[in-house]
Amino acid sequence: MATIKDIAERLGISVSTVSKGLNGASDISESLRQNVLDTAVELGYTTKQMRGGSPRRFCIFVENMEYDTPEQFGYDIILGFKQLAFRENCAVTVIPLTPDFQAAEKYDTYMLKNGYAGAFLLGLALQDPWIAQFNDSTIPAVLFDNYIRKNPAVSYVGTDSFEGIDDAIGHLISLGHTRIGLINGSRNSMISDRRWQAFIDSMTAHGLPFSEDTMPYAYFVPEAAKPHVDKLLSLGMTAILCGNDLIASGVIAECNARGVRIPEDLSVIGFDDIPISAQLTPPLTTIRQDRLELGKCGFYALHSLINHVSISTTLLRPQLIVRGSTGPCRS
Amino acid sequence: MATIKDIAERLGISVSTVSKGLNGASDISESLRQNVLDTAVELGYTTKQMRGGSPRRFCIFVENMEYDTPEQFGYDIILGFKQLAFRENCAVTVIPLTPDFQAAEKYDTYMLKNGYAGAFLLGLALQDPWIAQFNDSTIPAVLFDNYIRKNPAVSYVGTDSFEGIDDAIGHLISLGHTRIGLINGSRNSMISDRRWQAFIDSMTAHGLPFSEDTMPYAYFVPEAAKPHVDKLLSLGMTAILCGNDLIASGVIAECNARGVRIPEDLSVIGFDDIPISAQLTPPLTTIRQDRLELGKCGFYALHSLINHVSISTTLLRPQLIVRGSTGPCRS
Repeated sequence: MATIKDIAERLGISVSTVSKGLNGASDISESLRQNVLDTAVELGYTTKQMRGGSPRRFCIFVENMEYDTPEQFGYDIILGFKQLAFRENCAVTVIPLTPDFQAAEKYDTYMLKNGYAGAFLLGLALQDPWIAQFNDSTIPAVLFDNYIRKNPAVSYVGTDSFEGIDDAIGHLISLGHTRIGLINGSRNSMISDRRWQAFIDSMTAHGLPFSEDTMPYAYFVPEAAKPHVDKLLSLGMTAILCGNDLIASGVIAECNARGVRIPEDLSVIGFDDIPISAQLTPPLTTIRQDRLELGKCGFYALHSLINHVSISTTLLRPQLIVRGSTGPCRS
Repeated sequence: MATIKDIAERLGISVSTVSKGLNGASDISESLRQNVLDTAVELGYTTKQMRGGSPRRFCIFVENMEYDTPEQFGYDIILGFKQLAFRENCAVTVIPLTPDFQAAEKYDTYMLKNGYAGAFLLGLALQDPWIAQFNDSTIPAVLFDNYIRKNPAVSYVGTDSFEGIDDAIGHLISLGHTRIGLINGSRNSMISDRRWQAFIDSMTAHGLPFSEDTMPYAYFVPEAAKPHVDKLLSLGMTAILCGNDLIASGVIAECNARGVRIPEDLSVIGFDDIPISAQLTPPLTTIRQDRLELGKCGFYALHSLINHVSISTTLLRPQLIVRGSTGPCRS
């Protein structure tokens, strides 16, 4: 393990200057401080607090996801994480994340500078600057719905998309549907890629037809559904799977506006089971993710990484919740 | 949730007789008792103890795996499980398993009859009777190296074979090897299937040749390697990956007997890093599984299932341990 002296030697500065840099003293320049921190990260130096001081400090970074109220997707995930963290006497800070924030400072540097022992990261897109850094970052990070190969300091937590999509398609087949479309989440999202592949796998396994036209990418908001509904209906789809519940709510709104009846004319299935899903008209059939438990799994994985146990992947089982938005296929 | 009365009504017997059957009283016939238990399982009845009495009782079933001494593969897995169980005040019984044992009694019935709240199962083969039952069993079960789709009462724990095999092949490529063979574990093993696929994926990604001849199935013991060494050498392989360390030790023994030098003439890589691996001549390069942590993950997953949190999959990261059995490819 690197020492302060190693950092001093590398930079050709005194040990006391390194110490000032690590502790955020005001009498050295910001550029020198960054240099000290970057070098500390590069050499694998960790502060005493990060090695096991008490209480440990963790942070949760959130991007592309709402989390302020219980109705929003991220709320329960964060709550579950905090619940376990509390039991382990760990402090948790929630930090909104943007691409600019990531571009301004390296992940490892930010964590080291702020004394965080590890992070749980929600909603990052594949092209985000930090995603590439996770290939060789050294500060423990658990990613919700993002998988990084081979780095023992990084862990992936999510819900099994393959089982969820296959459950949904099986349910539609049992209702007589064979022409099933997918309005996926955004490109540049690992979880959209997985659901895309899961859809192909399940449709293929069931001998059902599909094409790029019947499985467009959209974005994880209601408005994104609108342009795709007309096309999928014109292609003869009798059921639409959606990348999340918000997209499904957009499909339902668009159908209501057009006089397309759900489920008589079109069956619709969401993904997530956020609270609003049961309140839609008709109530939404959806693939449930247990978000509170996802948060707890996130904490468990992070706690394991901190203790040098590298959990690569933790997947929860999805659960199909059948409500009024799916019904028998009109023949 | 089913009650004793439900069982009594279904069987047309009195509640007190059902109670005797569930409690193992001596004054009812064994066949009636089995009938009570089978019906209880069928209806989803669980005993008070199983619902949360203290201490909970768990069992670990072991098949096709040695575990009596620290040198053996299963020892640390069981130890890790027991260590976490102890902290949670749970009792653990280790039970050797055979196909006959499984054929004699259903998994759910055995568990219910013996008051076990859940099980950790090691070493089961794909054709084992209980494997098929796990598709709709209701008593929590965590399977090491076996994956059951969609049953929320069953969880899979293992090491990421895809990362491990790719690490090993990457290491061999860095040494100049391009003709790499695989002596796999036994057929009828889910983990053999995964390593077979992982080998194909990695070789394909690296643009290296392979065929069914260069990746034979064997069995997870040293003797199983012998018949394959000659063939793989005659096919021009300069490196052999093995399904586990025992197979690799068999490859090394066979090479020593034939005067084939390791690593000068042939590089050999195992899987697992059991203690013997470092003691071989030459010491074995291998893909390490952290067996103690696998056991702990097994307990964590089982504890989650008991609390109705269905973790589908937990994968640990493998770690490539480079020792003397791999070296530069002779050109």
